[in-house]
Amino acid sequence: MFETDVYIRRRRVLLEKMADTAAEGKRGIALFIGNADAPQNYRGNDYKFRQESSFLYFWGIDEPGFAATIDLDNGEECLYGNDVDIDDIIWMGPQPSVSSKAARIGAGKSAPAAVLDTFISHSVSQGRTIHFLPASRYYNTMKISSLLGIPAEDVRKTAPAAGRGKAASASEELVKAVVSMRLIKEECEIEEIDKACEIGYLMHTEARKGCKPGAKEQDIVGRMEGVTLSKGWGVSFTTILSQNGETLHNHSHHQIITPGRLLLVDAGAESNTHYASDFTRTYPCSGKFTQKQRDIYDIVESCNELAFQMAKPGITYRDVHIATARQMLEGLKSLGLVNGDTDTMVSEGIAGLFQPHGLGHNMGIDVHDMEDLGENYVGYDEDQTRASQLGLGSLRMARRLRPGHVITDEPGIYFIPALIADWKKNGTDKGMVNYQKLEEYYDFGGIRLEDDVLITADGARRLGPHRLPIKADDIEEAMRTE
Amino acid sequence: MFETDVYIRRRRVLLEKMADTAAEGKRGIALFIGNADAPQNYRGNDYKFRQESSFLYFWGIDEPGFAATIDLDNGEECLYGNDVDIDDIIWMGPQPSVSSKAARIGAGKSAPAAVLDTFISHSVSQGRTIHFLPASRYYNTMKISSLLGIPAEDVRKTAPAAGRGKAASASEELVKAVVSMRLIKEECEIEEIDKACEIGYLMHTEARKGCKPGAKEQDIVGRMEGVTLSKGWGVSFTTILSQNGETLHNHSHHQIITPGRLLLVDAGAESNTHYASDFTRTYPCSGKFTQKQRDIYDIVESCNELAFQMAKPGITYRDVHIATARQMLEGLKSLGLVNGDTDTMVSEGIAGLFQPHGLGHNMGIDVHDMEDLGENYVGYDEDQTRASQLGLGSLRMARRLRPGHVITDEPGIYFIPALIADWKKNGTDKGMVNYQKLEEYYDFGGIRLEDDVLITADGARRLGPHRLPIKADDIEEAMRTE
Repeated sequence: MFETDVYIRRRRVLLEKMADTAAEGKRGIALFIGNADAPQNYRGNDYKFRQESSFLYFWGIDEPGFAATIDLDNGEECLYGNDVDIDDIIWMGPQPSVSSKAARIGAGKSAPAAVLDTFISHSVSQGRTIHFLPASRYYNTMKISSLLGIPAEDVRKTAPAAGRGKAASASEELVKAVVSMRLIKEECEIEEIDKACEIGYLMHTEARKGCKPGAKEQDIVGRMEGVTLSKGWGVSFTTILSQNGETLHNHSHHQIITPGRLLLVDAGAESNTHYASDFTRTYPCSGKFTQKQRDIYDIVESCNELAFQMAKPGITYRDVHIATARQMLEGLKSLGLVNGDTDTMVSEGIAGLFQPHGLGHNMGIDVHDMEDLGENYVGYDEDQTRASQLGLGSLRMARRLRPGHVITDEPGIYFIPALIADWKKNGTDKGMVNYQKLEEYYDFGGIRLEDDVLITADGARRLGPHRLPIKADDIEEAMRTE
Repeated sequence: MFETDVYIRRRRVLLEKMADTAAEGKRGIALFIGNADAPQNYRGNDYKFRQESSFLYFWGIDEPGFAATIDLDNGEECLYGNDVDIDDIIWMGPQPSVSSKAARIGAGKSAPAAVLDTFISHSVSQGRTIHFLPASRYYNTMKISSLLGIPAEDVRKTAPAAGRGKAASASEELVKAVVSMRLIKEECEIEEIDKACEIGYLMHTEARKGCKPGAKEQDIVGRMEGVTLSKGWGVSFTTILSQNGETLHNHSHHQIITPGRLLLVDAGAESNTHYASDFTRTYPCSGKFTQKQRDIYDIVESCNELAFQMAKPGITYRDVHIATARQMLEGLKSLGLVNGDTDTMVSEGIAGLFQPHGLGHNMGIDVHDMEDLGENYVGYDEDQTRASQLGLGSLRMARRLRPGHVITDEPGIYFIPALIADWKKNGTDKGMVNYQKLEEYYDFGGIRLEDDVLITADGARRLGPHRLPIKADDIEEAMRTE
C-alpha cells in the first residue's frame, strides 16, 4: 500500500476530470465495487484474493467485501465495509476497524456495507447519474445489476452516462478518466513494476536452469511459481511453458524436455502490491540452437531490439509494430519462406501468418493493463481505428507513446500448421508465402522474446534491475555453465 | 482422468438412486453445469481453471464451458460444449472434438453449448422437473438462474424438487444421491488421495526444513506451494502458515520466524486429478519446544492419536470428537487451566474455548468434501442434529463411520485473547476456567495436528505412504538434523 497522499491525490484528480463531463449538480456519483472472495470449488475454499484493480488504484484496500463512492458534485467520499465480530476474530484474527481503514487512505467517511444499497437507491430516486466501471467478475456484475436494477449483460457494456439518470450500462466518462490516469505511471508505481520485474527475472532464471533434457515441464513450472510466491503475490498470469510454443497460450505442462526442441517460457510475477511483470524467453532444449532455430531466433531478437530502439515519446506503437513486421518479413524472405515486395507484404499483413498477435500491450496493476475497461479505450487514441488484419488487429497497444507508458515488447515467429493450412486453402497470402519450404517448419514450434519497457522523457528504459540474457550466444553460454 | 467405465458406472448408480425419488415418467432431468473460467483481475486473465467437483466426478472433463444432462426417465445423457475454431487453435492449440470427449467418458450424446438452453426450456414447458445441485460460483448461479428463470438467491437453496415442475431451488433428492456416492470413496479415488497425501508430505517437509529463526514466512510458503505445483495441481486450499496459530485461518505471511514462538502450518495439495490432502503440524521456531509448549503439544498429540485409535466403522465421529474433547479437558485440568468435574465440562462445551472448531471433516475431490452441497447433508446422518455449542457446533463430520469414508483428524488448542475475554465477560465457562492462569498463555499462539484418515473394513488407515513426524521428540530430532 502506498502513502495516504497517493490515494487522496488520485481521487482528487479523478474528481477534476469527471467535473468536465457535466455541469455542477448534474455530475452524479462514481461507484466502485471491490472484489469479493471467488469460490474455487466451493464457497469458503476461495482462490487467493485479488482486489479489483481500479479499486486498488483509488482506494488501496486489498481485502474482500468493500465498496466506495465519490459524490462528483460535492466531492464527498465514503468507504463501505463491515467491522468484524467475535466469530471473525476466531477465524481471521483481530482486524482494524473500517473507519480506521478509511482514515488510512484519506477517505472522509465510512459506513457498513448495507448503507451502500440505501445510498444508491436514494440517489437513483433523486435522478442522479451513477457512474460505474464495466464489471469483470460475475460477483461484481450481479452486485451492480442488483443495486441499479439493470440486466447483468448491460453491466459489462460501456456507453456515455452523463445526464442519463441511474445509468443503464458502464460509464464511458468514468472509463476514459480512469484510463487517462492509470496509463501514465507514477514514480511509486514504476518502483513497484521494477520489483515485479526482478521477481520475473528470478523466476525465468529458474526456468532456464531447469531446461535440461529429461526434466518435466510441470516440475519447472512449479519451481518458477514457487519463486513468485516466495518473493511476491504470485504469478501475474497463468504461466506459459511449452515445447509447443506455436500455441500462443499453451497452459499444459505434461511433457518431458526433449533435446532438439525449443522451450518457450512466457511468465511474470505480481509484486505484493499487485504490479505486474511479463517476460518471454525461448530456450534450445539441448542447450544449443540448431542453425535452423538460430536463423529464426535471430530475426525475432532483432525485432525485439528494433522495437526498443524505436520506442520513445511521439511515435505510435502501431508504427513500431509495423516496423517490426517489416523487419520480420525481410528476415523470412532471406530464408526463402516468403517472397514478394516487402511493402506489399507488409500492407497485406503477411506477417500475421507468423505472428498472429500484436507487438505488445500496456502493463501495470494488470498484466494487460485495464483490459477489463475495454481494449480500444486503453490501447487506442481517439483518432486511431483498430485494424482487422490477423496480427495487427490483435495489437492491444497502438497509441502514440508518452512518458510514463509501460508496455511490453514481444515479437514472435510461430509455425502453426492449422493456420498455414487455412491460409493455403483460402489463398490469404496472395502468392507471397512459400508453402513448400514452410513444410520443413511444421514441427518447429515457436519463438517469442519479450521485455517490459518504460517510456521516458526522451526514449525508453527496460524495466527491472537485471535483463534476462536474450542474445542467442548469451543464452547458450548461460545454459552451458548452469 | 479415470477409465471410461468409472464414469459410466457412477452415472448408472446415480440414475438408479434417482429412480427411487418419483414414479417413471415423473423423474425429470438432472442438470450439471461445469465451471467457466473465473476472472482474476479481468476477463481473460483467469484464475487457474478448477472444474466443479460433482461435474468432475460424473463427467470427468477438466475444461471450462461444459454442461451435461441425464434424462432420469429414459437414461439419455448429453454433454454440451463447443468445438474449437481456427482462432481457438492459434491460442489454445488443436483440441479433440466434443463428440470424442463425450465418447471418452461414455456419454451417449453431445451437442453444442446453445442446445442446452433449448433442451431445458423445452423440458420446462413440458412440466418436467429439473434437478440441479446448489451453485457455488457466481457464474453457475447466473447460468442456472437464467436457464430456469428463477432468482439467483434461490439457486443456492436446497429443497425437495420432485413433482414440482422446473424446480425453484436446488434439488434435495439430487444432493442426497450425490452425497451418498461421493462419501464412500472408490479404490481409484483412494489411490489419488494417497498421491495427494504424498505431495502434502513433501510440502510439509519443505516447511519444517524452512522453519529456522530469521527465515521469512512468505519465503517458506512460496517454496511449499512450489512443490504442490511441481508435483500436482497446486494447493488444495490457501496455505495457513503462521506464528499466530491462534487465528484459525490466518493467511498473512509477513512475519519473520522468531525463536521461542510456534509455527503452525496447515496446508495440503491437490493431485493432478483433483483429489485433496490436508495436514497440520506445529513447530517450535527454535527447533526445541519449551516445557510450557510441550505440555500443550503433548495433549493435542494424544487427542490426535486417540481419534485415530477410535475411528472405525460403527462409531459416530461426533462421539470421537467428544472423546477427544474429554481428553483435552483432562490434560488442561492437570495444567490448572480448567477445573471442575470432567463430565460437566464436556457437556458444557468448555473445550470450545480452546478448540472452537470440529475434530475433522470429510475429504475427497474437495478438501472439505462437498461443502457446497450443504454441510448438514454431507456430515450428518438423518437422525443427527447439529449442536449449537462453540466447537462441537462447528463439527463438519458427525456421521456414523463407514468403510470408504475419508476424514481428517485435527484436534487443536488455541489461546485466543478476544475469545477468552468474551467468555470471561459473559460467564460462559460457569466458573470452570482459570482465567488468571490463562493470562500466562495470551502470547502462546495455537497448536493443531492433523492427519488424513481412511475408514477401512475394520479400522482406519492414515493416508499417504509417509507420515509426517508428529511426536514432539521426533519433531525436535528432525529439526536438529535438517
